Amino acid sequence: MKKRETAILLLSCEDVKGIVAEISHFISTYDGNILYSNQHQDVHTNTFFMRIEWDLAKFQIPIDKIRSAFEPIATKFKMNWQIHFSTEKAKIAIFVSKLDHCLLELLWRHKEGEIDAEIVQIVSNHEDSRPMAEFFGVPFTVIKKSQANKQEAEAREFEVLENCGADLIVLARYMQILSPEFVKKYRNQIINIHHSFLPAFVGAKPYHQAFEKGVKLIGTTSHYVTEDLDQGPIIAQDVVNITHKDSIEDLVLKGKNLEKIVLSKAVQLHLEHKLHVHKNKTIVFE
Amino acid sequence: MKKRETAILLLSCEDVKGIVAEISHFISTYDGNILYSNQHQDVHTNTFFMRIEWDLAKFQIPIDKIRSAFEPIATKFKMNWQIHFSTEKAKIAIFVSKLDHCLLELLWRHKEGEIDAEIVQIVSNHEDSRPMAEFFGVPFTVIKKSQANKQEAEAREFEVLENCGADLIVLARYMQILSPEFVKKYRNQIINIHHSFLPAFVGAKPYHQAFEKGVKLIGTTSHYVTEDLDQGPIIAQDVVNITHKDSIEDLVLKGKNLEKIVLSKAVQLHLEHKLHVHKNKTIVFE
Amino acid sequence: MKKRETAILLLSCEDVKGIVAEISHFISTYDGNILYSNQHQDVHTNTFFMRIEWDLAKFQIPIDKIRSAFEPIATKFKMNWQIHFSTEKAKIAIFVSKLDHCLLELLWRHKEGEIDAEIVQIVSNHEDSRPMAEFFGVPFTVIKKSQANKQEAEAREFEVLENCGADLIVLARYMQILSPEFVKKYRNQIINIHHSFLPAFVGAKPYHQAFEKGVKLIGTTSHYVTEDLDQGPIIAQDVVNITHKDSIEDLVLKGKNLEKIVLSKAVQLHLEHKLHVHKNKTIVFE
Amino acid sequence: MKKRETAILLLSCEDVKGIVAEISHFISTYDGNILYSNQHQDVHTNTFFMRIEWDLAKFQIPIDKIRSAFEPIATKFKMNWQIHFSTEKAKIAIFVSKLDHCLLELLWRHKEGEIDAEIVQIVSNHEDSRPMAEFFGVPFTVIKKSQANKQEAEAREFEVLENCGADLIVLARYMQILSPEFVKKYRNQIINIHHSFLPAFVGAKPYHQAFEKGVKLIGTTSHYVTEDLDQGPIIAQDVVNITHKDSIEDLVLKGKNLEKIVLSKAVQLHLEHKLHVHKNKTIVFE
Repeated sequence: MKKRETAILLLSCEDVKGIVAEISHFISTYDGNILYSNQHQDVHTNTFFMRIEWDLAKFQIPIDKIRSAFEPIATKFKMNWQIHFSTEKAKIAIFVSKLDHCLLELLWRHKEGEIDAEIVQIVSNHEDSRPMAEFFGVPFTVIKKSQANKQEAEAREFEVLENCGADLIVLARYMQILSPEFVKKYRNQIINIHHSFLPAFVGAKPYHQAFEKGVKLIGTTSHYVTEDLDQGPIIAQDVVNITHKDSIEDLVLKGKNLEKIVLSKAVQLHLEHKLHVHKNKTIVFE
Repeated sequence: MKKRETAILLLSCEDVKGIVAEISHFISTYDGNILYSNQHQDVHTNTFFMRIEWDLAKFQIPIDKIRSAFEPIATKFKMNWQIHFSTEKAKIAIFVSKLDHCLLELLWRHKEGEIDAEIVQIVSNHEDSRPMAEFFGVPFTVIKKSQANKQEAEAREFEVLENCGADLIVLARYMQILSPEFVKKYRNQIINIHHSFLPAFVGAKPYHQAFEKGVKLIGTTSHYVTEDLDQGPIIAQDVVNITHKDSIEDLVLKGKNLEKIVLSKAVQLHLEHKLHVHKNKTIVFE
Repeated sequence: MKKRETAILLLSCEDVKGIVAEISHFISTYDGNILYSNQHQDVHTNTFFMRIEWDLAKFQIPIDKIRSAFEPIATKFKMNWQIHFSTEKAKIAIFVSKLDHCLLELLWRHKEGEIDAEIVQIVSNHEDSRPMAEFFGVPFTVIKKSQANKQEAEAREFEVLENCGADLIVLARYMQILSPEFVKKYRNQIINIHHSFLPAFVGAKPYHQAFEKGVKLIGTTSHYVTEDLDQGPIIAQDVVNITHKDSIEDLVLKGKNLEKIVLSKAVQLHLEHKLHVHKNKTIVFE
Repeated sequence: MKKRETAILLLSCEDVKGIVAEISHFISTYDGNILYSNQHQDVHTNTFFMRIEWDLAKFQIPIDKIRSAFEPIATKFKMNWQIHFSTEKAKIAIFVSKLDHCLLELLWRHKEGEIDAEIVQIVSNHEDSRPMAEFFGVPFTVIKKSQANKQEAEAREFEVLENCGADLIVLARYMQILSPEFVKKYRNQIINIHHSFLPAFVGAKPYHQAFEKGVKLIGTTSHYVTEDLDQGPIIAQDVVNITHKDSIEDLVLKGKNLEKIVLSKAVQLHLEHKLHVHKNKTIVFE
C-alpha cells in the first residue's frame, strides 16, 4: 500500500473527437505511465468527463510545471479541469453532534492510513466527543449553536475553518442545518450522511418515518451539501433489510452500521478525486 | 416437497396473557403437531399477532369441524381470526399490460409447483401476452381500458373475476389505475409491483425519476393495493446497485430482474397465509 | 432501549406433542407475558428447539426459584435446557493480535450499550492495542505466544480467564490457533471471525487465496471454535463484491468492514441467547 | 436501445508507455468517436488489458478494412487482439438437462432483445424442454448421454454444433461433464452455471453440501469451462441469505432465482466482449 507519486487529471468538456488521443499523447510524450483511466459521456448534454491518473516516477515535467504544460490542451478543448498530485494532502474538518460512530470510524481509518489526508479539526455543538478527539490527537472545538445565535456561531465556525485551512468538511451526523452562505462558500466541499435512502424520508427523524411507513429496507445516503436540504448530489448509498420485528431503536442500531461505512466511502472517493458533479448528480469513477 | 395436510391459524387480538397457552393446548389436546409458530406484539397498540400451523395427519377433529371447535377460544380473546387448510387452493387472476416478465415468472413458477394455487385467468388491456397464456394453458381475456370507458371496462373485469372465482388479483406490471370501488371490493386481495423503492418515486415513470435524481440504487416494491396510489401496505422490497454509466434503459433492464423475483415472493407469502395487515403495514411471518 | 427484566428459556428435546402447550401454560399460570417465542423442528433427527422469553414484571415466581419450578417440565420431556435472566450479565474476554478494527468495534458497541455484557479482559500477544484498551478502561494483558512456549502461554491465559471469570471468549482477529484442550474447556464459548466465506479458503491468508482464485465476492464468517480449524458451527456470514481492479490490499480493506460487523452480530446473538448448536450447525433465533 | 454500429477492440500486451496514445490517435485520426474505454494493468505480470469501443457512424475506414488498418499498431506492441463489430451476431447453443429455469430465462431475454445474438440450437439429454423450445422457435435436439455412450454422444454433439455454427455454448444446468477434448475445442467459449459459491462445494449436489455445512448464505457461480471440473475462470457470482429454517428444497428454490440471473449476466458480458481471461481469472470490463 506504499503510495506512488501520481498526477490525477479530472476534466469535463464538450464531447468532440480527439480528446483522449491528445491527453494520452501528452502523458506518453513526457514518459508518464497511465495507471487508471476512466471516461464517461453524458449523451443528453454531449459532455465528456474523464479522470486519468499517471505515475510521476519517470515523468519529465517537474510537478510545479505540469499544470502550465497541460494548459494549452485544456484551452483547446475548453475544459473544466483540475490536476491533483498524490503528494498534496487534503485537510479535513469534521462536524459532529452527540452520536460519535461516524466520527470514530473516520478517526480510526485515518489512524490506519486508509484516509489519506490530514484531519485538522473537529467542531461540535456538544462536549461529548472531546475525549475521543484527544485520544486520536485532533483539535476539538465546541461551538454551541441555536436558532438564536446561528449567525454568530457560523461566523465562529468560518474562523475556525480558515485557521485550520480545511478544504473538506465532513458532517458526521451533525444535526444542524448550515446556512446557504455557508454552503455556497464550500461548494462541493461539504459531505453529509443522511440516515435514509434519499429521496425517501427527507428531513428530521427518517428512521421514525421509515418505521411508520413500514418499509422492508432502510438506507443511508452520503451526498454533497447544497442549499436544498438533503437534495445535494448523491455520492453513495446502501441499504439493509428490516422486518416488522425491528423497533425504531433497532432501525437506529442497524442504520449506524451503514452510516459509518457509507460516509467513509464517500469521503475516500472525494479524497481520491474520483467524483464529478454534473447537473446535481455525481459521476463516480471507481 | 410433497405437501403435508396442515391447518394454518392466523389471528390478532388484544395482547393479554394466556393466548399461546390456550391455542397450543387446543392443538395438542386433539393430537395436532405444531409445525410452525410465529408471534408478534405491537407494543404501541398492545396487539398480539400469531400464525400457527399444525399437521393434520393425526388431528382428531375433521377439517370441516375445526373452525367451529376453535370458535370458543376466538370468542374468549375477541380475535380477528382465520383458519386455512393447505388443501384449499387459492384462485389467482393476473392483470398484465405489455411487459410480460412478471407474468412469465408467475406462470413458470406455477408450472413448477412453486406457486401452489390455481391461475384461473389472465386479464390484459393488450393482445401481446396471448401466446404465452396459451402455452401455459391459462384463459386470457382482453379488456381494453381508457379514460373514456373505465367504468364499463371495470364492470367487465368484475364479471370475469366473478366467473373465474378469483380471490387474489396480481397486478403483474399492469399499467392502469384501479378505481376505489374496485380496490374496496378486493381489500388485501390485490398485490401490485411498483418499480421503485417506495416511498421514493411514487407514480409514473419511476426509473426516469430515479435517473434524474441520480440515486446509486434502484428498487422495487410489492404491496397490497389501497385507494391511495402506491401507498398500500408494503409486502416485499429489494434493490440493486446502479452507476452513472447506466442509462434509463439499463435501469429498466436491471429493474426487471428485481420485479419478477419480488412480486413472486409477495404472492407466495400471501398464498402461504404469512401476511397480516395492521395500520397500513404488513407483518410478515417468514 | 431500557431493558425489561426477562427470563429466557432455551431448550431442545425429542419432538413430541404438547411441549409448547405445557411451557406456555407454565408461563401464563404464573402471570408471565411471553415477549418472543421461536421454535424449530429438525425433521431429520426429530428434535425440537425453542427459545421463549417472557416479561418478569408480574411473574409470580421469584427469580431464584424459577429454574426449580420449571424443572419438572424439563424432566418430563427430557430437555436439554437453560434459563437465563436479562439481569445476569455475561463476562467477555477479547483476544486480539495486531489488527484492532474488530476490537475497537466491540469496545465502542459496549460503551454505547449495544453489547450488554461486561468486557472484563483483553488478552493480546502484542502491545499494540494497549492505548485503546486504556481509553475504554478495560484490563489489558500481553501474553506472548510462540510455537516454543504455547503450553505455558495457554496456562497463563487460563489463569487470566479464571481470574476475570470470563464466560465468553471473542477472538477478534487473534492470529494464534488454540489447543484442543483450550477449545474443549470453553465448548461453544469461543467465537472467532474468519476472513473468508467458509468453507472456502480455510486457514492462512484467505484474502490471498481469494485473490488467486479470482472470486467476484469475498466474505467473512463468524463461528464457534472447535478442535477442527475453521470448521466450527457457523453463526453469521456476509459478503461484498470485488472486481479484478481490487488488489489484495483492497480485499483486506473491504474485508475489515465486513469482519467487524459480522463478528459483532455473532457476539450479540450469543449474548441474547439466540443460538442453539446442533450437529455442528447453528440454529439462530433472530 | 437502438444499437449503434460500433467496433470493439479487445487487447492485451506487455505494459509499456504509449499504447493508449497510439490507439486513441488511430481512432480519432479516422473520425471515430470513443464510446467506452476500459483498461487494466496486472502489476504482477506487467500486462496491459484494454477494451475500447467506438462509433462507426463517421469512421472513415470501411468495416472490412479496419482489422488490417489496425494491424501495424498491434504488431508494434505485440498485442493479443481481436476487433468485433456490433453488427456481427454470435451464435449460441444451449445445453440443458431437466431443469429449465435457466433455459427459459435465456430464451425470454433473447425474445426481448436483451440477448443480442442468435440462439441456433438447444441440445438436451432429455425430451422435457421440447415444448418450450418449440414455443420460442429454436431447434431442439435430444442426444442421450451415459457413461457407456459418452464418446459417441459427444461426436453427435460436435456434428450438431458444427452444423449450426455455434460459437458460444451455454450449459444451462446441463448435468453432464464434458470431455477434455470437447472443452479444448471450445476454449473460453463454454459458459457454465454452478449452483454454489465456488470454490466452496465443488462437484455434485452443492445445495446438499451447503445444507450439511450449515452456511448462512448460498451462492451461484458462472464460469468458463476448463478441463478441471468447476475450476474455470469465474465470470459472475451472487449469494442469498438462508437460515436454519430452510430445507434443502428451499435452498434449491432460492438458488434458482440466482442461477438464472447470474448465468444470463455472464452470457451478456461474453456477448458484449467485456471479458478477458488471464491466468485462470477474468477481467470484467463492465
